[in-house]
Amino acid sequence: MTTIDQLKQEGFRLALEDGVLTVTLDRPDRINALTFASYAALRDAFRAFSEMREVRAILLHGEGPRGFCSGGDVRDIIGELFSRDMRGLLEFTRMTGALVAAIHQCRAPVIAALHGVVCGAGAVIAIASDVRIAAPDARIAFLFPKVGLSGADMGASWLLPRIVGYGRASELLLTGEFVDAERAERIGLFNRVSTDVLADAKKLARTIADGPAFAHAMTKKMLDYEAHVDFATGIEAEAQAQAICMQHPDFREAYDAWVEKRAPRFER
Amino acid sequence: MTTIDQLKQEGFRLALEDGVLTVTLDRPDRINALTFASYAALRDAFRAFSEMREVRAILLHGEGPRGFCSGGDVRDIIGELFSRDMRGLLEFTRMTGALVAAIHQCRAPVIAALHGVVCGAGAVIAIASDVRIAAPDARIAFLFPKVGLSGADMGASWLLPRIVGYGRASELLLTGEFVDAERAERIGLFNRVSTDVLADAKKLARTIADGPAFAHAMTKKMLDYEAHVDFATGIEAEAQAQAICMQHPDFREAYDAWVEKRAPRFER
Amino acid sequence: MTTIDQLKQEGFRLALEDGVLTVTLDRPDRINALTFASYAALRDAFRAFSEMREVRAILLHGEGPRGFCSGGDVRDIIGELFSRDMRGLLEFTRMTGALVAAIHQCRAPVIAALHGVVCGAGAVIAIASDVRIAAPDARIAFLFPKVGLSGADMGASWLLPRIVGYGRASELLLTGEFVDAERAERIGLFNRVSTDVLADAKKLARTIADGPAFAHAMTKKMLDYEAHVDFATGIEAEAQAQAICMQHPDFREAYDAWVEKRAPRFER
Repeated sequence: MTTIDQLKQEGFRLALEDGVLTVTLDRPDRINALTFASYAALRDAFRAFSEMREVRAILLHGEGPRGFCSGGDVRDIIGELFSRDMRGLLEFTRMTGALVAAIHQCRAPVIAALHGVVCGAGAVIAIASDVRIAAPDARIAFLFPKVGLSGADMGASWLLPRIVGYGRASELLLTGEFVDAERAERIGLFNRVSTDVLADAKKLARTIADGPAFAHAMTKKMLDYEAHVDFATGIEAEAQAQAICMQHPDFREAYDAWVEKRAPRFER
Repeated sequence: MTTIDQLKQEGFRLALEDGVLTVTLDRPDRINALTFASYAALRDAFRAFSEMREVRAILLHGEGPRGFCSGGDVRDIIGELFSRDMRGLLEFTRMTGALVAAIHQCRAPVIAALHGVVCGAGAVIAIASDVRIAAPDARIAFLFPKVGLSGADMGASWLLPRIVGYGRASELLLTGEFVDAERAERIGLFNRVSTDVLADAKKLARTIADGPAFAHAMTKKMLDYEAHVDFATGIEAEAQAQAICMQHPDFREAYDAWVEKRAPRFER
Repeated sequence: MTTIDQLKQEGFRLALEDGVLTVTLDRPDRINALTFASYAALRDAFRAFSEMREVRAILLHGEGPRGFCSGGDVRDIIGELFSRDMRGLLEFTRMTGALVAAIHQCRAPVIAALHGVVCGAGAVIAIASDVRIAAPDARIAFLFPKVGLSGADMGASWLLPRIVGYGRASELLLTGEFVDAERAERIGLFNRVSTDVLADAKKLARTIADGPAFAHAMTKKMLDYEAHVDFATGIEAEAQAQAICMQHPDFREAYDAWVEKRAPRFER
């Protein structure tokens, strides 16, 4: 089994504390811009987290005062891409898409704590997370059209309309303009704005880590699955999913705790 | 043909008044908690309503000051579930899912009037309804994780993201926390907050009952159908659906009423 | 190749200015109501715009002080429909649906500038547009039930729940009531409310017209495509879409402009 310490930490740091794994994007001088190497390492890390039982909730944030993540590093990446043929370009876009998939499909819920600049690939990583808590200074932009590209990048055209609705998603992806924290919260892009964003995000990660991990993983899986099925299929899928959860010891433990008027201790 | 009076009223009461059927969850001492028997009876009732032409709009609310519905009765249901095998658990989860399906697929539009506690199965019943009018004291929670279970319960993971967006749905289903009326309205979970919730919900039910029942049923059917099809399929399906409605006498009646400057009298 | 001047302008006017095509619904004495002839001409026009490289953004608005568009002309259309058989009715509903499809599938982004009355077919045309900027006096209604018809008209039951969520869409399509600009903006139905709506909408159209047209067209296409596919399919589709955009000269031009600290000049 892979352990946290065995993972390559390229452009980010990892710290596990009683079920809460903190992932810190760590290139503050470049507003935590991603490189070829850090995209791949982050993708591999999220894939590995999914297999690690000790990872029960993930807190994702960016080091330094300037922001969460400014996206792909222009110097490192864009220049290099011009020399690639279609095979090489697809390798890149599939790798960045695979990072978003690894976050979205990670068993453990991911809480993004956002501040300052959240743009480009950084914005997509933010919306691939399950819940977004943002500082009042957080501003988010899907600035692909500003660099001559499409808003269909890393899953943004799949995720964003499902989060903020088709009309707002069209606007944000066609303009590439920044949305401030107040509007982002109002349209459902941020779940909450907090003046103590890291502390509040940690608190939420703690609550989720102390919760029923098996059931949470099922919730996350079913939200993804049911995004594209019809209602009747969803109803039957949930009947099966919840019946499975009812056979898990956590269901019994919650009941016993309720009877005994104590906090439940869910399976670790 | 089944009539309203022939339906088993187990844990709820029914009253039909000129097309508006009021369904009152009626175990106020238990905040209208559902039992095995009331789940089944309610499911059967909603299935029957769909066949009753005299039912043109349904008003769903809960008796007593404490709330709309606190969900499945912990004493009646949870203890019993521990003794069941997978076949028995699936019987239960399919029955509760079938209640939600019966509401969602009921021909007549369902208006939920919400107050106080709206949680667990009560919250899913609320979101399976077509429109939600809420009192200022209404608070809603999908508290499945609190009892060790998944938010994929009774269709909640299909319905909720389509109502409030993927980001807010993830948060609500992973935390199980209560949302107050003001936030619920803001995020689209409640359609409106009203200080006279029952009267306002009745007024809306009356308007819908006096409206074109055939066309309303088509709207409800098509909203469900088009939730999972592509745009082009939806466009053609609507062309057929609306052409069918144009052959219904209600279309002519609305036009005649408009010419004669009177209110239309739609087919009963 | 068809040119703008060759298009039949029936009930609307066209004016192209450096990539921004203004479509003005032009029957102000009837609040720009649509006739059989104008539906068909508008459908043909939007289909043609999609093929015209010189059309990079479309601004759609209505002439006169009373409103954007009051929908199908009651006198011209409804009376005539009563004499039609199913074949004839389907011809009509497919034609109106085809207009909405032509807008939704038009290569160039469509910005609707809304004011006053926006109802019936006018409301559906508004939501088929990509972005909606509205005057404070704009009010929008899907008033189909008022005329005895279903809210499943011209794609409204596909588009509206994806823009404002299932709960609000159900309410709006079942009641047919007007929503004022303030609420419409709050629920995501209008992107913005502006006291200088035409100027602001033109500004946005200009920004989009000066942007990367090839990438914008890809964004619009992918938003439509990904509305009904699963997440994994979306991720791969975007990897291919963006790799294609990376081979387009606009990507290089944006980078060169960034290096040279000047505004990019995207391909015309």
